[in-house]
Amino acid sequence: MWRNEKYETVPLDVKGIDEDNSKGTTDSLYPQAALRKAQQGNERPKDPKLWPYFQDGLRRIDYVLTYHVQKPQSTRKQSAKSCLCFKFRREQSSPPVHEDPELAAQEQRLDYHEDDQRLRREEFEENLREMGLEMEREEGNKIPGVGFLKIHAPWEVLCREAEFMKLKMPTFKVFVLVNMFVQKVTATLQPKVGENRVENEKYLSYPFSREKQHLFDLSDRNSFFDSKTRSSIVSTNPFRKAFCLPSQGQFKTKCHLSPDLITKGPDVILILSLQILCEEWASYSIFYKYQPIGLIRKYFGEKVGLYFAWLGVYTQMLIPAAIVGVIVFLYGCVTVEDNIPSMEVCDERNNITMCPICDRVCSYWKLVTACGTARASHLFDNAATVFFAIFMALWEICALILHFCFNSLHTHPQNVKLTCRDRMPAYMTIIVMMVFLICVTLAIVFGVVLYRVSIMTALHMSSTPSFRTNIRATVKTTAAIINLIIIIIMDEVYGAIARWLTIMEVPKTDKSFEERLIFKTFILKFANAFTPIVYLAFFRGRIIGRPGKYIYVMGSYRMEECAHAGCLMELCIQLCITMLGKQLIQNNLFEIGVPKLKKMLRQRKIDKKHQEELDKTLHRHEKDHFLGPFVGLNPEYMEMIIQFGMVTLFVASFPLAPLFALLNNIIEIRLDAKKFVTELRRPIAVRAKDIGIWYTLLRGLSKVAVIVNAFVISFTSDFIPRLVYQYMYSPDGTLHGFVNHTLSYFNVSHFQPGTEPTESMHLGYKVEVCRYKDYRDPPWSDTPYEFSRQFWAILAARLAFVIVFQNVVMLMSDFVDWLIPDIPKDISIQIHNERNLIVELFMKQEQGKKYRNTIGDPSPQPLRSRPSSQA
Amino acid sequence: MWRNEKYETVPLDVKGIDEDNSKGTTDSLYPQAALRKAQQGNERPKDPKLWPYFQDGLRRIDYVLTYHVQKPQSTRKQSAKSCLCFKFRREQSSPPVHEDPELAAQEQRLDYHEDDQRLRREEFEENLREMGLEMEREEGNKIPGVGFLKIHAPWEVLCREAEFMKLKMPTFKVFVLVNMFVQKVTATLQPKVGENRVENEKYLSYPFSREKQHLFDLSDRNSFFDSKTRSSIVSTNPFRKAFCLPSQGQFKTKCHLSPDLITKGPDVILILSLQILCEEWASYSIFYKYQPIGLIRKYFGEKVGLYFAWLGVYTQMLIPAAIVGVIVFLYGCVTVEDNIPSMEVCDERNNITMCPICDRVCSYWKLVTACGTARASHLFDNAATVFFAIFMALWEICALILHFCFNSLHTHPQNVKLTCRDRMPAYMTIIVMMVFLICVTLAIVFGVVLYRVSIMTALHMSSTPSFRTNIRATVKTTAAIINLIIIIIMDEVYGAIARWLTIMEVPKTDKSFEERLIFKTFILKFANAFTPIVYLAFFRGRIIGRPGKYIYVMGSYRMEECAHAGCLMELCIQLCITMLGKQLIQNNLFEIGVPKLKKMLRQRKIDKKHQEELDKTLHRHEKDHFLGPFVGLNPEYMEMIIQFGMVTLFVASFPLAPLFALLNNIIEIRLDAKKFVTELRRPIAVRAKDIGIWYTLLRGLSKVAVIVNAFVISFTSDFIPRLVYQYMYSPDGTLHGFVNHTLSYFNVSHFQPGTEPTESMHLGYKVEVCRYKDYRDPPWSDTPYEFSRQFWAILAARLAFVIVFQNVVMLMSDFVDWLIPDIPKDISIQIHNERNLIVELFMKQEQGKKYRNTIGDPSPQPLRSRPSSQA
Repeated sequence: MWRNEKYETVPLDVKGIDEDNSKGTTDSLYPQAALRKAQQGNERPKDPKLWPYFQDGLRRIDYVLTYHVQKPQSTRKQSAKSCLCFKFRREQSSPPVHEDPELAAQEQRLDYHEDDQRLRREEFEENLREMGLEMEREEGNKIPGVGFLKIHAPWEVLCREAEFMKLKMPTFKVFVLVNMFVQKVTATLQPKVGENRVENEKYLSYPFSREKQHLFDLSDRNSFFDSKTRSSIVSTNPFRKAFCLPSQGQFKTKCHLSPDLITKGPDVILILSLQILCEEWASYSIFYKYQPIGLIRKYFGEKVGLYFAWLGVYTQMLIPAAIVGVIVFLYGCVTVEDNIPSMEVCDERNNITMCPICDRVCSYWKLVTACGTARASHLFDNAATVFFAIFMALWEICALILHFCFNSLHTHPQNVKLTCRDRMPAYMTIIVMMVFLICVTLAIVFGVVLYRVSIMTALHMSSTPSFRTNIRATVKTTAAIINLIIIIIMDEVYGAIARWLTIMEVPKTDKSFEERLIFKTFILKFANAFTPIVYLAFFRGRIIGRPGKYIYVMGSYRMEECAHAGCLMELCIQLCITMLGKQLIQNNLFEIGVPKLKKMLRQRKIDKKHQEELDKTLHRHEKDHFLGPFVGLNPEYMEMIIQFGMVTLFVASFPLAPLFALLNNIIEIRLDAKKFVTELRRPIAVRAKDIGIWYTLLRGLSKVAVIVNAFVISFTSDFIPRLVYQYMYSPDGTLHGFVNHTLSYFNVSHFQPGTEPTESMHLGYKVEVCRYKDYRDPPWSDTPYEFSRQFWAILAARLAFVIVFQNVVMLMSDFVDWLIPDIPKDISIQIHNERNLIVELFMKQEQGKKYRNTIGDPSPQPLRSRPSSQA
Repeated sequence: MWRNEKYETVPLDVKGIDEDNSKGTTDSLYPQAALRKAQQGNERPKDPKLWPYFQDGLRRIDYVLTYHVQKPQSTRKQSAKSCLCFKFRREQSSPPVHEDPELAAQEQRLDYHEDDQRLRREEFEENLREMGLEMEREEGNKIPGVGFLKIHAPWEVLCREAEFMKLKMPTFKVFVLVNMFVQKVTATLQPKVGENRVENEKYLSYPFSREKQHLFDLSDRNSFFDSKTRSSIVSTNPFRKAFCLPSQGQFKTKCHLSPDLITKGPDVILILSLQILCEEWASYSIFYKYQPIGLIRKYFGEKVGLYFAWLGVYTQMLIPAAIVGVIVFLYGCVTVEDNIPSMEVCDERNNITMCPICDRVCSYWKLVTACGTARASHLFDNAATVFFAIFMALWEICALILHFCFNSLHTHPQNVKLTCRDRMPAYMTIIVMMVFLICVTLAIVFGVVLYRVSIMTALHMSSTPSFRTNIRATVKTTAAIINLIIIIIMDEVYGAIARWLTIMEVPKTDKSFEERLIFKTFILKFANAFTPIVYLAFFRGRIIGRPGKYIYVMGSYRMEECAHAGCLMELCIQLCITMLGKQLIQNNLFEIGVPKLKKMLRQRKIDKKHQEELDKTLHRHEKDHFLGPFVGLNPEYMEMIIQFGMVTLFVASFPLAPLFALLNNIIEIRLDAKKFVTELRRPIAVRAKDIGIWYTLLRGLSKVAVIVNAFVISFTSDFIPRLVYQYMYSPDGTLHGFVNHTLSYFNVSHFQPGTEPTESMHLGYKVEVCRYKDYRDPPWSDTPYEFSRQFWAILAARLAFVIVFQNVVMLMSDFVDWLIPDIPKDISIQIHNERNLIVELFMKQEQGKKYRNTIGDPSPQPLRSRPSSQA
């Protein structure tokens, strides 16, 4: 009796398949069996011309590889044009490797390369066959010089690999409570995909296991594993093994067969998906809608889905930041009239004579001429800036925790670490190279500085007064544009260098290769993008010396001074130009223009006359051959992380940065979508648990951002001096007299010989004492031109602010971190409930089994209706 | 044919058990079946008197619960003294809950409590029975008033729960390469346990699953799950469910049955283990040896094992820290003669007159009298201190990463978070309470300060000169001892308060209860232990005002000054006394004394005359009833974490702290071991993946330590002023003149009336200008007694040092973090290899199966010889 029950409890389907397969290997001998299999699988024999099937019309193509066939008229018959069908017949297939050397020796030297390629190909195919895959070759049928290798994974292989990969497959439906109100409110924001209409039921998932097949709905074996899963099953494990085993660790990072995947839309359902994606995703007109992440993930796989989900969430997070940024900016605009320091600068009655800003050609000037800059500076340097910097620091933490926590939902330990033990000598070379490259960046920045200094001096020599007032603005803007162009060019150069350096390192695995490459590229591109900004923020105007004792570089160039109200204004212009320019140029030129150009070039190889004719007859995979290959998501991520840096690192000096980033990202999402849908081959569906090393880099950036913002507020802006003046020196507790307090006195008789202005009577009167922006003792004190007590007090205050800001923000971050659970409560409850349901199900099964065992009841109550396949 | 194979591939053993069990439920009816089962299980029927078995001598006791029977002469027959055997007979057991209310109503009011208890007990037992456990009750047999509930888990239940818990069980042996050289070198350090002699083979583990039973060696079912695993299987899941389901979330944190586990040594093997543990672990004479962690883990379960492993590693990590600390201290000793500032203080020729340190009764004094303190200060405040602080910061990181990474080896996301959303009102109460308690601590510290001030003044009034010189040392030491006593008393008080507050919160789960309790206790105990030290380090001597304008508290008490060379010396004394005293007193009194006392009290309840007689006849579990219950590891962890705080937070001021900690821990390990082996009942073997919230607290502490050390070095020690003097003000680049530079001038005519010293001629000459330690302008400047330029410059330098130190240490920490892989390379390779082996095994099985299917070979090659149990 219990033997019958045995039969019940054990998933018979495995047997069924085993049986089928054992006969399936000899399909041609038993056409009956093939037919039966097709019927069982809910599948009619297909027209052999219908694309996604092998020539026999039964086995579906799960994966297509292409390779180049340079000599279609090859003498060897083995690589004939006709389709060779390989079956699972391991013990019968004679190893072709043994034949090859002799034949190869007969051929000419020029053929050697192709032979080598073919040899490898055969070795590779042999490996695939050993994994149980079935293959069909198609060489140069329609497109000359291109061979296709179609791969089919039999049900048994799919099951085995799914079990090894612990793929979570749907088991049975459960009801999920959905907040209908929220659903209705956000209805207009949802893409019309059809999948998220009334989603109050969902499938419970459980890792696939052949021994627990009764849990899964296997009534339609063809659709149980969808095409994405099938192709990823085929591509991941066996490919890895096939590549790695014979080449003994040397060729892992470079695939010799260049197995470009061309499976855009391998079946009808997916062609439909592609159309939905085109309409509901890759379109600018629906920029306000959510992305159909479920569909993207289904079609492109988890890694790509994760990127777009991340990008979407990041963009969403930018909205509050942009709003607060705009409010801060508006606050600056509104309060500009009430700002005492800028009022004092603009007040004609404060007759302050400033020292010349360059040697000889420049003359003394009235402070009131700096009125415009002083007012503009207030827009970015006001009380709200500090608040905004703190807000943004917390925003970062929220962004990292709440929404970038794609990493923490998953249970794998983060091994995104780059250890440095393996190859010290290689590392030394690379470190030296990296340092050298960063020095190059510094040199470029210095070059731009020199350009600015020299142009400034030259412009000052021309004596048109109306022209002179615009001098500063002109120089600033041109210098920023030059910087931008250099950044964009060097970006590409550094990308190539980083790749070359990483290849030199010979990392052991693909993953390690990718991580090292990302790390290097990040360092270089980051240094490239941020060096000019860092120079402006922290060094410009700080190492100029003082009147009578200026610091000179390159012989006679005096270092640049900042405008009267600090360098914040210039920093702001630089950031603005870099962000806008970089985003616009890189988006338009590199992301749209270059791929289009490449596609055109690729199509030009085919004769023009054939092309139209081909367009009609070509199969989907043959058409896709002309699309660009998928080169990975790294450039997209890199662009976003540099943007994140711009938004967070110097946010204290440019509150509009989040707004610009937001606008850019809204375009970026749709642009990337279009690219993925129309310009690129469908990428291999890669399973990804998290955004990997990018998360580490983001965390690092947000740490650096805290300290950078602390320094920007305390050293670049005038926030601290104002505060110190107000509470320590001001006679009436207001900012009246602040401008006077920030200016030191200089006796013009102390100018170094030859540096005094030539037109000393420019202002119309003889100047005896001029003023300059610094805290130094006046000429008549015991210690003339020494740093004054105020200087040290303000310095201490600035430093104290840095300490307080850094630690307060860190503390608040930790507090927010503590406040927000890693996994949102509803999700953790849902996970808990689902686990309970599964356990309950198992317990029911146990008891059902026991019941039958003890009582002997022959009618078990199955938990789900299973197709009676063993009839 | 394939039906036979089916039979092969499916783990038949499950069936076998099912069958056995279905009969096992009616043991008394079929003694044959019971016998057969016993034989099958490699087990002879045991003497019913032999302890670890039920009365039938067959079923092993896996778990014992005790409860109080206050009325052994209970009127109800159901709770009779004879043993009632419950079987798995769910459908037959009539729910006793329905009967009870009627019976209870008949009884007197006094009985109500016991009835309620019994009612709950029966509900509980019913739940256990539903889980499939079997029980035997034994009431007041030998020890009056105590009932025992013995629990046995049948094989089927064990298997089911093991599968749900995904317990990793050994599958088959593999060879492991062991470095024999290392083995030989460390041989003397290894405990003689027998298990780590020649450990070059080990078992591969795989999560237990009934469907993969063929992987495991089930030849001896009795020993497949060891006693620790059995008891943990019994205790964890069913207990939780049994407790939680009926009581609907209200009683989760308090177990009404108080299921104290008394299973010390339930079988022979374990009694042997206990002996080995006694000899090779719980003994002071082998303090230099490694602990037998494997055995501890086997005997006490993972959680306890993890604690001792952690403690051992932490102690080991202390060795380098202690060595470097001693070297730094010795460096101070050696260089004390070359130290210019202390030489200057001790130089009689520098005739410096200091201002009085208290009002009226104190007089002017010569700086040379502070010679002793100046020299002593140098021991702790020298150039090596900064190096040591940086070293210790990195040491912390290494400790956290390298060895405290018990957390990161495991794949579970850390959900040790305490979220604060659930109950806002309760939280508010608690926060208010906590703030109040911390205020109490502050008040106590302030009280001690007042004590010190008043005693000091009082002592100064007595005019014995020889007595006066010892005043400072006496006051310091007595104050520190008073502090210590208060700390120890308040420690216990706060522990109780924290527990009470947590109970008020009504957390939802045991885990949450524990975490909240730990968190609160930590905050309170930490504040308690560190407030006096923080006061000494950062506030003492800083808020005193200046001569002529002192700050007074409580009417007329002047705030304390530091000794001439800074407060570092006093901080050092305080730390030393707190650490030594706390460790010695708490270890001796609370960890040894109190448990012994409790044991004595417990044994006194039994009549003395019976005792000796009982000692002979009592079973193991009855004897263990007199041992103390296991109250969790939290006090042990708490003690260690406070010590970790002492070692890391103020290490800059007390380089010998690691040495003291090391000595303490060497004793602590053996002390705890003794306690676990001889004083406490055997705890439930709890599976633990990590040290949980303690790791979070340690991480937090190490973060705080960085900033605290930065402040100690820059503000408490004279390191920065010395540096600033040497590089900014010193005429010859040495420290000559430093002491003079740190002292400001005070014109004695500026004393507030009534505060000038009464004995102004004490030194033998009339003092016109006295000196005090501060950076202020002299009386003859334009701004008398204002903070001087030097003050601000030094303040800026101090703050800059804090920023630099904090960020450099953080950067280095991240770098070290990056350098050291989370998982050591050899272990990650081993994990990888093991995974490969398992995959290979599965692949072989696949192919074997397929081979048989396709070819029809009836003789499969099993991977391991399995006992032919289905005969």
